[in-house]
Amino acid sequence: MRAVDVIMKKRDGGELSRDEIAAIVNGYVSGEVPEYQVSAWLMAVFFRGMSFRETADLTDLMLRSGSTMDLSGIAGPFVDKHSTGGVGDKVSLVLAPIAAACGVRVPMMSGRALGHTGGTLDKLESIPGYTTRLDEKRFREYIGRDGFAMTGQTDAIVPADKRLYSLRDVTATVESVPLITASILSKKVAEGAEALVFDVKSGPGAFMKTVDDAERLASSLVRTGQAMGKRIVGVITDMTEPLGDKVGNFLEVEESIDCLEGRGPADLMEVTYRLSAWMLVAAGVAKDVDAATRLCEEAVSSGRALELFMRNVRTQGGDVDRMTAMRGSFRSKHVRELRAPASGYVRSIDAYKIGLAGVYLGVGRNKTSDPVAPDVGFVFERRKGAAVAKGDLVATVYGKDAASLDAAWPLVTEALSVGPDAPAASPLVIKEITAL
Amino acid sequence: MRAVDVIMKKRDGGELSRDEIAAIVNGYVSGEVPEYQVSAWLMAVFFRGMSFRETADLTDLMLRSGSTMDLSGIAGPFVDKHSTGGVGDKVSLVLAPIAAACGVRVPMMSGRALGHTGGTLDKLESIPGYTTRLDEKRFREYIGRDGFAMTGQTDAIVPADKRLYSLRDVTATVESVPLITASILSKKVAEGAEALVFDVKSGPGAFMKTVDDAERLASSLVRTGQAMGKRIVGVITDMTEPLGDKVGNFLEVEESIDCLEGRGPADLMEVTYRLSAWMLVAAGVAKDVDAATRLCEEAVSSGRALELFMRNVRTQGGDVDRMTAMRGSFRSKHVRELRAPASGYVRSIDAYKIGLAGVYLGVGRNKTSDPVAPDVGFVFERRKGAAVAKGDLVATVYGKDAASLDAAWPLVTEALSVGPDAPAASPLVIKEITAL
Repeated sequence: MRAVDVIMKKRDGGELSRDEIAAIVNGYVSGEVPEYQVSAWLMAVFFRGMSFRETADLTDLMLRSGSTMDLSGIAGPFVDKHSTGGVGDKVSLVLAPIAAACGVRVPMMSGRALGHTGGTLDKLESIPGYTTRLDEKRFREYIGRDGFAMTGQTDAIVPADKRLYSLRDVTATVESVPLITASILSKKVAEGAEALVFDVKSGPGAFMKTVDDAERLASSLVRTGQAMGKRIVGVITDMTEPLGDKVGNFLEVEESIDCLEGRGPADLMEVTYRLSAWMLVAAGVAKDVDAATRLCEEAVSSGRALELFMRNVRTQGGDVDRMTAMRGSFRSKHVRELRAPASGYVRSIDAYKIGLAGVYLGVGRNKTSDPVAPDVGFVFERRKGAAVAKGDLVATVYGKDAASLDAAWPLVTEALSVGPDAPAASPLVIKEITAL
Repeated sequence: MRAVDVIMKKRDGGELSRDEIAAIVNGYVSGEVPEYQVSAWLMAVFFRGMSFRETADLTDLMLRSGSTMDLSGIAGPFVDKHSTGGVGDKVSLVLAPIAAACGVRVPMMSGRALGHTGGTLDKLESIPGYTTRLDEKRFREYIGRDGFAMTGQTDAIVPADKRLYSLRDVTATVESVPLITASILSKKVAEGAEALVFDVKSGPGAFMKTVDDAERLASSLVRTGQAMGKRIVGVITDMTEPLGDKVGNFLEVEESIDCLEGRGPADLMEVTYRLSAWMLVAAGVAKDVDAATRLCEEAVSSGRALELFMRNVRTQGGDVDRMTAMRGSFRSKHVRELRAPASGYVRSIDAYKIGLAGVYLGVGRNKTSDPVAPDVGFVFERRKGAAVAKGDLVATVYGKDAASLDAAWPLVTEALSVGPDAPAASPLVIKEITAL
């Protein structure tokens, strides 16, 4: 089979067979198909799309380009959650112990901060001693013992995705729903989950800027995952404002512990409970999302989720005493206050601008090889809808140095919008698509 | 300027500036932009198209990637004709001396047979001694003296086109009107013509299979050429049946001499006179196409066009005596007759199938590096519309060897369609688009 014929078929709107997709993906991995043919094919896919069947075949072929996690020998059910990325999105840290406390096994493989979005691995690594580099043996062992474990992807998992993503990045073929679907899903299926809950963020602070785009991706993830024999839930949540009161690395660990102590901000808890409840439903632990929500709330109020979180920190090498001592005080000395420029209401805090400002501060990074800082970020005192008088403290902002605060400041002040009228409330959980 | 941003802009339907197109084309030629970005850009152009302004900029940038023919010092007007390729299309051999006899200077750069379509250079090289490898000095000198000269493209002419075409060929981005336009036009403008007549073939034996597609290409060539300051005519002609009674290399030289002796087949002469007449109009030699046609007919009937043809053969090293002696007898000994399978009318002789069969016989080739045979091809005794009795000779077919005839024969017999009713006549010159 010639790669050019596969490119032409897709270019002309044809549905590719599994063998045709394999000719491109396997040919690329083996070096038989050159990058210039792969990139032309990617652009044809960008324009023509893929059926769920094609996307499932692409996902499966990518998956098979590397090794997969073998969770046999541990009792399931195995369910993971994946977020498409947001600002202040520390849901994974809170949800994993909640779901584990309810009897779900969570093999969680997370990513790093990139661009304006944060990364779970960077947050966890702000805990002294905590390692996110687990080999398969330890990952399995910890999941079996603690109910969940947190790790990064190894190079052995879906190497085709790493190569394809690098190529997409330089050929303007990132924003393709089937390609995004295959990239996300291949890695999630490789980690051994039987069911998956996707948090597809929508809004200025998300990768998908509109609800329509988010819905397209959520549908694609759900239908493609279903075609691969997985139980899948896609939840579209709003990412217009940062999630929770704190944005940073250790700052978000702090807030996660607050949540597990029953003192989490309402917006963050709403999203966390909804996603964890769907995990329980997908796992068969609860019959519906309302019953599941009650179980999740009980996991928090009983302290069992917090206990599992602390156990995981110890298991993965973290120093719980130091972490506890750092709460409320581990802050960079380079600090500046964001104050209300007028009296009225906080109409919006723009998640995208906060995320971009965070890159300057040291919360995030532009290249995966750049370092992040553990002790920087935002502590919001007032959020959307709050009444403020001119000069009131809205946020305390911590930067890795004075220059970073200077660089971030125009974005920080632009992110805050204060006006005479209270803003209308908007739902956090926008839509849910299920295939259970 | 980053190549990925240019790709993204085109992908999203934007109109690229000259600088943005230059970033891709010049970057590709210099090696700064890798092939995988160029191919993604080509596919984005395939889907999004280009404005005439963009296409003109692309053409001009490709043109400037190499050297251009300097015809200063010779008196013009310089006009060339280009055909998009067909079967039995020996128009160039007849038209160049006709136009030259009427006072037009014709700097003709032609191509080789590829796939089912024939090539002017291969036909000319079937004349013993004839060379199509002229350096610029000789090309200029011959045009000045004989009114026209026939050459192939040198490597110095539009090197960007050679590289882009090779990449398009393996990335399914050949069939893009702006890319085809820039490829054709850059080479034609580089040869120094002030005005150009394009014969855009339409039909099963052509690159453009439908009149609509041919019209799109003709419009693009005319409007883009106009944007580059050239006078342009696009003539859409039918390529459903082979043009003329003979298809081959020396066979087509023979038929070209027949034409110049005033004994050419009607279809071939109709197309030849129409295209050469437009050359005269574009050159300003005649005020309209009717007056121009009379001048072209007079150039044939007076014998002046034939005289110029013979002079050119001598000038370019051909042996006129041997050529004359070969007429009617220079035929491969591997011969087979195509006879009418039933009584009735020849409804069609499929140009595409004849062209493909010709590749087996040795008329054409699949790769530009393959050799062709001078003494093979088709001599048609009956053409579309002719009444035939079962067993009548329709064509004599010459192959390079017995095996080639065996391989070609299924296509040859399939090409001939005989039925009880006479076929409807269809026009040869379908549409004309002018910018003079």
